[in-house]
Amino acid sequence: MHILVTNDDGVTAPGILALAQEMRALGKVTILAPDRNWSASGHVKTLDRPLRVKEIKLDDGTRAWACDGAPSDCVSLAANGFVEEKFDLVVSGINSYANVGHDVTYSGTVTAAMEATIWEIPAIAFSLDQPEGNTAPVDFMPAARIAQRVARAVARYGLPKNVLLNVNIPFLPADQIKGFRISRMGLRVYHDKLDRRADPRGRPYYWIIGESPTSVPERGTDTGTLAEGYVSITPLQLDLTAYQLMPEIDTWDWDSDATPTP
Amino acid sequence: MHILVTNDDGVTAPGILALAQEMRALGKVTILAPDRNWSASGHVKTLDRPLRVKEIKLDDGTRAWACDGAPSDCVSLAANGFVEEKFDLVVSGINSYANVGHDVTYSGTVTAAMEATIWEIPAIAFSLDQPEGNTAPVDFMPAARIAQRVARAVARYGLPKNVLLNVNIPFLPADQIKGFRISRMGLRVYHDKLDRRADPRGRPYYWIIGESPTSVPERGTDTGTLAEGYVSITPLQLDLTAYQLMPEIDTWDWDSDATPTP
Repeated sequence: MHILVTNDDGVTAPGILALAQEMRALGKVTILAPDRNWSASGHVKTLDRPLRVKEIKLDDGTRAWACDGAPSDCVSLAANGFVEEKFDLVVSGINSYANVGHDVTYSGTVTAAMEATIWEIPAIAFSLDQPEGNTAPVDFMPAARIAQRVARAVARYGLPKNVLLNVNIPFLPADQIKGFRISRMGLRVYHDKLDRRADPRGRPYYWIIGESPTSVPERGTDTGTLAEGYVSITPLQLDLTAYQLMPEIDTWDWDSDATPTP
Repeated sequence: MHILVTNDDGVTAPGILALAQEMRALGKVTILAPDRNWSASGHVKTLDRPLRVKEIKLDDGTRAWACDGAPSDCVSLAANGFVEEKFDLVVSGINSYANVGHDVTYSGTVTAAMEATIWEIPAIAFSLDQPEGNTAPVDFMPAARIAQRVARAVARYGLPKNVLLNVNIPFLPADQIKGFRISRMGLRVYHDKLDRRADPRGRPYYWIIGESPTSVPERGTDTGTLAEGYVSITPLQLDLTAYQLMPEIDTWDWDSDATPTP
């Protein structure tokens, strides 16, 4: 198995190294990840500038590729022949914070896995549910060992086309994690605010303040599963069609209010 | 009705002006859009730098706000009080090319509408299925008139939470458009390639060549609907859970290959 390891916290983040170390038990590992943090960057395809890729060494001496593109660009490079050998699996993470609910379309961790899915490579996004404001150093190895077990299962059972796994791991000592649960995408309530300021010349500028979203830990959802102490495994699909709504919209009158026909 | 008009081709693109002009028949219009092209930029929340917003005048004298953030940032600004009056509808476009199949998570046009949906404002993304390589000037007004009819219908019937409409309009004279069809997200086959070059100093750099994807115009899909000459209306949901797969994954053995329990 040839495994691509990428992330959105940047190639030097501790989570990616732990993930790469655990993936080595399953096969050959290539690390290709952004040279900086790309959090909340979304699903990007960089077409208007070329990408640079530099070979670096990580803390333990592991060779890795650092790219100046987005996480999804790294996957696109890898899928399109940046290294000759084809990939059998793409793993992304381990992100320092959970990616749950509506986070998934913003998340570089998850959109890197989406990009792999588009190129028909099985893909898994891994995130650790670290509490906001935690300042203690984080050991990613217990989460990485869980990631290895999930990757083994994907290698064994396979994933259908157009589906990826979004895995969130509780921030608990290994012996307090209760097991694995399949969950659905839950709800997050965002509390973003606008902070309007004036620069030294009196001209306005605006910060989006992304305060910690509130998770709605409903049972069966990603956040609910984390709250109960289980690893949350959510299968995500790239088909976003709201099928259940199609029959209703089909009854709509498109000529309402006597608007002219085109 | 107060309507936010945004896009991802940039505030001075012709498609947004046509859309704004037609939206005026439905209510008060505010234009807030990126100051440059953000195509294939994905769902972005800019938190690491402040945003600038400048008031400009469009070709017909219309006032508009030009922002140096992504399309989704523009919606976030609007939803979080950049202007005092709340918004009842967000329309995004008219994009110069179709947004179908897997385009939707990359697309700034669609992710702007997703952002509005997260803030619980009904939202519609509009794109014109212009053929790649067309060099003739494009009249966006027929497509904008169609957009008005769709917006009227949304205002009349409403959209459920967490659902947006992705509307693609055929590149045909108005009298050759056959009507409106509800469609599902189809498939696009991408043909991206990597172009490896050397800079004047001999160091490598890489272009992702995003060649025109091939649409699979299956009946009932967005691309199939466009190919038949109908306006394609696809309801998209923010819940990406692959529900149909949950029971199967639930049977997986997470301890396969005798990996240690965490």
